[in-house]
Amino acid sequence: VTSLSASTPQDRGLIAAFEAIVGPANVLTQPSDMAAYLTEPRDLFRGGALCVVRPGSTAEVAAVVRLCSEAATPIVPQGGNTGLVGGQIPAPEDRAIVLSLQRMRALREIDLASNTMTVEAGMVLAAAQAEADRVGRAFPLSLASEGSCTIGGNLATNAGGTGVIAYGSARDLVLGVEAVLADGRIYAGLSKLKKDNTGYDLKALFIGSEGTLGIITAAVLKLFPKPRAVATAFIGLPSPADALALLDLARDKAGGEITAFELIPRLGLDFVLAHAQGARDPLAGPHQWYILLELGAHEEGAADRLLELLADAAGRGLIEDAALAASETQRRDFWRLRDELSEAQRREGGSIKHDVSVPIADIPAFLEEAGRIVATAAPGARLVPFGHLGDGNIHYNVSQPVGADRDAFLARWAEINFLVHGVVARYGGSISAEHGIGQLKRDLLGEVKDPVALDLMRALKRTLDPKGILNPGKVI
Amino acid sequence: VTSLSASTPQDRGLIAAFEAIVGPANVLTQPSDMAAYLTEPRDLFRGGALCVVRPGSTAEVAAVVRLCSEAATPIVPQGGNTGLVGGQIPAPEDRAIVLSLQRMRALREIDLASNTMTVEAGMVLAAAQAEADRVGRAFPLSLASEGSCTIGGNLATNAGGTGVIAYGSARDLVLGVEAVLADGRIYAGLSKLKKDNTGYDLKALFIGSEGTLGIITAAVLKLFPKPRAVATAFIGLPSPADALALLDLARDKAGGEITAFELIPRLGLDFVLAHAQGARDPLAGPHQWYILLELGAHEEGAADRLLELLADAAGRGLIEDAALAASETQRRDFWRLRDELSEAQRREGGSIKHDVSVPIADIPAFLEEAGRIVATAAPGARLVPFGHLGDGNIHYNVSQPVGADRDAFLARWAEINFLVHGVVARYGGSISAEHGIGQLKRDLLGEVKDPVALDLMRALKRTLDPKGILNPGKVI
Repeated sequence: VTSLSASTPQDRGLIAAFEAIVGPANVLTQPSDMAAYLTEPRDLFRGGALCVVRPGSTAEVAAVVRLCSEAATPIVPQGGNTGLVGGQIPAPEDRAIVLSLQRMRALREIDLASNTMTVEAGMVLAAAQAEADRVGRAFPLSLASEGSCTIGGNLATNAGGTGVIAYGSARDLVLGVEAVLADGRIYAGLSKLKKDNTGYDLKALFIGSEGTLGIITAAVLKLFPKPRAVATAFIGLPSPADALALLDLARDKAGGEITAFELIPRLGLDFVLAHAQGARDPLAGPHQWYILLELGAHEEGAADRLLELLADAAGRGLIEDAALAASETQRRDFWRLRDELSEAQRREGGSIKHDVSVPIADIPAFLEEAGRIVATAAPGARLVPFGHLGDGNIHYNVSQPVGADRDAFLARWAEINFLVHGVVARYGGSISAEHGIGQLKRDLLGEVKDPVALDLMRALKRTLDPKGILNPGKVI
Repeated sequence: VTSLSASTPQDRGLIAAFEAIVGPANVLTQPSDMAAYLTEPRDLFRGGALCVVRPGSTAEVAAVVRLCSEAATPIVPQGGNTGLVGGQIPAPEDRAIVLSLQRMRALREIDLASNTMTVEAGMVLAAAQAEADRVGRAFPLSLASEGSCTIGGNLATNAGGTGVIAYGSARDLVLGVEAVLADGRIYAGLSKLKKDNTGYDLKALFIGSEGTLGIITAAVLKLFPKPRAVATAFIGLPSPADALALLDLARDKAGGEITAFELIPRLGLDFVLAHAQGARDPLAGPHQWYILLELGAHEEGAADRLLELLADAAGRGLIEDAALAASETQRRDFWRLRDELSEAQRREGGSIKHDVSVPIADIPAFLEEAGRIVATAAPGARLVPFGHLGDGNIHYNVSQPVGADRDAFLARWAEINFLVHGVVARYGGSISAEHGIGQLKRDLLGEVKDPVALDLMRALKRTLDPKGILNPGKVI
């Protein structure tokens, strides 16, 4: 953490002005107070900031942004600080402020007839899920960091997670947003309307733009009926191609009821069994690949339908073995085998990560090609590709060879990225399926994105943030 | 239809250049040839154009737009010419060209694993539905004009229709678009990826912007499992409040299976029974209001679930009577009672129309208030509010008093609009839920839209179309 002393009178004046807006207790300037806002989960980026400002209302956000606009002081908006690409961390040389939305966590309204919930940006995702649950509805966005990530961050990054296959990404779960623009004006777009064709889709400017076009301060979220019956299976199968055939079959038999279809390789399961306390293999023998399949049904019968599906898949030779969760405890045990993958990989040493997507039909070929190329470039490296097969999104992670030097392996990050992303490009895929661009992939973006698309992005950035004060150095 | 003679050498040169790009047969300059492109369904707008250009490929569209950009000649993109707000009709004084996408109707690809279909903008919606059906999938966008409207027009206007309650609007049914920008460059965004967080949501600029920010030439559409069982009921009930309670109950019992929830007032049914040949009231006695309710289920049992729901609703006193379609013929008969409403109203003389939405919970109060205000302002006027109750979208149509003068009644269009839209505004609703802005509501938009939102829209327009040649005078 770089401590930037407020050395100039201008800096000191700015900080005093922030204090007048949000109260002195909500302007942090001490390195020890700021540390939690300037480091991030993977410790890839260390930030530095003039101060951390914690406004308590949209009006306060607007006032802070107006001041920053006048002073041309950069602003890095931050929610739960769980992002994986450094989008929420200020570069010290920018002398930016961190604008933390964490104090804005109010539930503004629930409207059951409209099936909507209006929440402030700082509400933690798990809290939003709980509010929906409390009124007999579901808010289906779900990701590993849901205990600390915030709705504002989820929307700013268009978060994905395990529910995308049934409900879409964060973008698909929003009816309206309120956002503060770069000049401090408030875009008051908290519409509960499902249908409104009066002009351009302005909320789309803010969702997924990682705080570079505006600061989301509140949102109207869609609520969904709570599934009455959930059925979960842990399935062993010989290959990704078989997993794809199983997905086809499942879609045919269960359609929109598929709420998770997660791929796990044997090596990933081995890692989890080795490192996660109490983890057990639900199946008797080993298999090359696994699928965690979950159905969520509106009425009873999900378990019957899942059993039927598994019997059919076995009859076609697509699957080798499967276990059905007989209790909520067992269901949680199955999910733990998926959720602990990243942590277990961390315990196995250095891991070079990719968050990629390709058209679903191309996943087996992509895995095969990428595997061949990485194995040639880094003999002994251990491939742990896993993730949201049903969405075409694979976390193509590569663990260091056993006994190799961690730092030497991690030094090859860009080189291995280049190889894997080359395969992704050949299949018309994405180098960031769900984690966003942030700082980590900003330079990569320029290499892989269509020049016309990049030009449009730059034009939008110039139009909405002419002074370039909103999250500079991120995305583009 | 105003015939604009290509009087200047510049005009003649431009037309010759268009002919060189698309072939002389695809540049129409004779008034008789152009007439079909310059009049529209409700005959509210009569257009005039230099010529109609019918390109056959994206490259030809790009070449035509480049020429127009150099000459600063306005372009009005047009699909099936079924729009209801004049968005597809050029104002004679603009001396614009109509760019018809109708020749670009190719199916470029179907990818069953990705559940996507890539089609060109000129493909008729019904043809897209048929292509999906042919491979055992559904493309669920459905509207009255589906036999002639095109995918490009559907996306440019973010079309709604009867399937929105289950599948969303056109915007929700698209993964990627290809579009020609105002300077003739091609945005090549035909991605099949369900997840791609590499930058801003650029397709959102084009979808719903009515051809004012770019010209959509092709799109990747989402495909869905075909419902295996469909159950349809025609239900009589005492009030919109009861209809809302029925919707709540239906959501609770059938959740995502509700594929239509359409409101019809008794007077509307009377109109249809009087004018649509062979139409019959499915119920024995009269009721104040009706709901056309349809469930689409992945597995059998939809009819049982619907029966159960109706019995429960009857037990709670929400509904007075109901008929269940026993055959596909009967189902079509039920739907005809809904689909013929506009035509039957036309037969009853002048009709002042509104396409509005309010939060769903506020629909009963909105209907009550608007009804009171309109009845006071126009005694004897006949209220026929109908439509997509499940989406909060009401076509609040007002038929002239019996025997009144049609033109005198229609002369009060703006006055009645003002009254109804005032009620809409009080409930935070939309003055164009699904038809868009076009020419018809452009001036209204300035009055009702938030100034910051209008400013953002103007900024986007300036950025993407600095010369103002894309569909001038529409939307903003």
